[in-house]
Amino acid sequence: MRAKKKVSIKDIARLSGVSVATVSRVINQNGRFSEETRRRVEKVIKEYHYTTNMTGKSLRESKSNTIGVIVPDISNELFAEIVLELEKYFFRKGYSVLICNTNEEEQKEAAYFRILESKTVDGILCISGSEDLPQEVLSTGIPIACIDRRPKGKNEVVYVESDHYLGGYIATEALIKKGCRDIMILSKQRALSVNTQRLNGYLDALRDYGIPRRDDLVVHLGDDLSNFQEARDIVFYMIKKKIRFDGIFATNDWRAYGALVALQQNNIAVPEQVKIVGFDGVSVSEFCYPAITTIQQNKKELALKAAHLLLKMVKGETVPQRHVVLPVALVERGTT
Amino acid sequence: MRAKKKVSIKDIARLSGVSVATVSRVINQNGRFSEETRRRVEKVIKEYHYTTNMTGKSLRESKSNTIGVIVPDISNELFAEIVLELEKYFFRKGYSVLICNTNEEEQKEAAYFRILESKTVDGILCISGSEDLPQEVLSTGIPIACIDRRPKGKNEVVYVESDHYLGGYIATEALIKKGCRDIMILSKQRALSVNTQRLNGYLDALRDYGIPRRDDLVVHLGDDLSNFQEARDIVFYMIKKKIRFDGIFATNDWRAYGALVALQQNNIAVPEQVKIVGFDGVSVSEFCYPAITTIQQNKKELALKAAHLLLKMVKGETVPQRHVVLPVALVERGTT
Repeated sequence: MRAKKKVSIKDIARLSGVSVATVSRVINQNGRFSEETRRRVEKVIKEYHYTTNMTGKSLRESKSNTIGVIVPDISNELFAEIVLELEKYFFRKGYSVLICNTNEEEQKEAAYFRILESKTVDGILCISGSEDLPQEVLSTGIPIACIDRRPKGKNEVVYVESDHYLGGYIATEALIKKGCRDIMILSKQRALSVNTQRLNGYLDALRDYGIPRRDDLVVHLGDDLSNFQEARDIVFYMIKKKIRFDGIFATNDWRAYGALVALQQNNIAVPEQVKIVGFDGVSVSEFCYPAITTIQQNKKELALKAAHLLLKMVKGETVPQRHVVLPVALVERGTT
Repeated sequence: MRAKKKVSIKDIARLSGVSVATVSRVINQNGRFSEETRRRVEKVIKEYHYTTNMTGKSLRESKSNTIGVIVPDISNELFAEIVLELEKYFFRKGYSVLICNTNEEEQKEAAYFRILESKTVDGILCISGSEDLPQEVLSTGIPIACIDRRPKGKNEVVYVESDHYLGGYIATEALIKKGCRDIMILSKQRALSVNTQRLNGYLDALRDYGIPRRDDLVVHLGDDLSNFQEARDIVFYMIKKKIRFDGIFATNDWRAYGALVALQQNNIAVPEQVKIVGFDGVSVSEFCYPAITTIQQNKKELALKAAHLLLKMVKGETVPQRHVVLPVALVERGTT
């Protein structure tokens, strides 16, 4: 039995015949070292009952200090900005972030979950996507937090989202209060919880203000083209078909901008003849002319709240709140 | 000495007392298995001299089938689109892609290089960034390819870039041919090879057409604000200061759009009084009004060429070309 004097990382380095940096790399499983070095260092660590200050946990349980982020499309500015906030937050906290882009493909998403697991990330943050999470991932026990994605019946998963229902409601209400009666909604086909919630907000606002729903004004866009082109083309088509409308609620800002351009190309004055409200608050809504009234999502707060909760789970702390819904706000600009 | 009959993965599974799937996971270092399982499976593999069909290489050399991508800012549409192309290409080839966002911070970049190395990626693709690559990374021997980043004196690194000099030259030439004589360049402070090359193209075009260089029109923007705001504010300032100019070469499209808005706010007609050429060919240049004449980078080809070369290196094949320069093209739109 050896003396109980507490050994330091320097002692371990000396006893293993390697540098302090190498010991640190072995402990953190971070960087290159030979299998032989690993064995030697781990042997000394065990022999001297060395525990790191960092965690106080055993070597086997040592964390990789990486977080995986799964995102459907980083070329979507909303998602990109959330990812950047996540990255900044985790890096400050000593975690690296590995970003995986799924291109909205479920198979790819499942593959990336597996990859992140095999790369031993400490936690996974999923942005948007369907209500299902791969069952095999949940069973691994890696902490998961979701942003703008409400996992169906998975009580163990933490999620943070904007109040999309409220957003749909106040967008529609803003148009109604400005005198619109025939309000088109440009929604999306994919059955994501955010789409459904925004549509429900729109429908409830119409109902509350006694405006009959017109099914020909509920437009579900596909996935083929860019948001901008799809929206521009469909609004162009609606104008040519002489379908009557005086307001458009576009469920994202690029769709709103596409609608604006279609109206301008047909010499329909915005906001005089048709008013538009977008969603998200990305730069195009601010910088185009006229600037677009939109529902602002608090991207930074979404990221920080979710990152904070995930980090608590990673550290094994209790999470005070499993579901967080953040308010959204109407930003009035030139299109209403 | 055992019989030389070739053993299959099924034999290994049976002899180790685990499933075929588990053997596969151990071989590919993909997925979860206990340390004990790993030892047992590897012992059997060694004992029976089992080699996989996949690679024919030894177990130690087995690939992780992941590629790391290092990018300064995924909220920059140009970079995001290149990353998406890379991701699609590698996924089709059976590789997962881990994306790391450096926020243009050198320290962070170095940290992410280390992380990717510790996660045993098979290759690293760097987009943009400074001319220096961390020496410690090069010494690891992981294949590296760069896009729009020309590593200084590192002959071992493969890079693919747009012809930024040509882009700067033809942008300036287009303005000169439309009658501009006082051409502002909105460049960036950071000493990246792309910035220097575009500036040189601008200067050489002026010289070739006998137009004296005016230092007050060579504007180096900082890093503080968004490209749009910075460019808008500086052009606004130049107008207020009554600095004479009749053309603007903006070294990216958001800067070009910022310049356009500043001119419009001051009732200066575009393209009648001032003409603008942007760079990159991102969506804002196409969708704003008037649409912006720009230098189109072939984002898809940049990604595919670099990915193709990196994959060759990963597979240990010879690379036919270490430096690839892709042409750029002038896309004439409403601002010239």
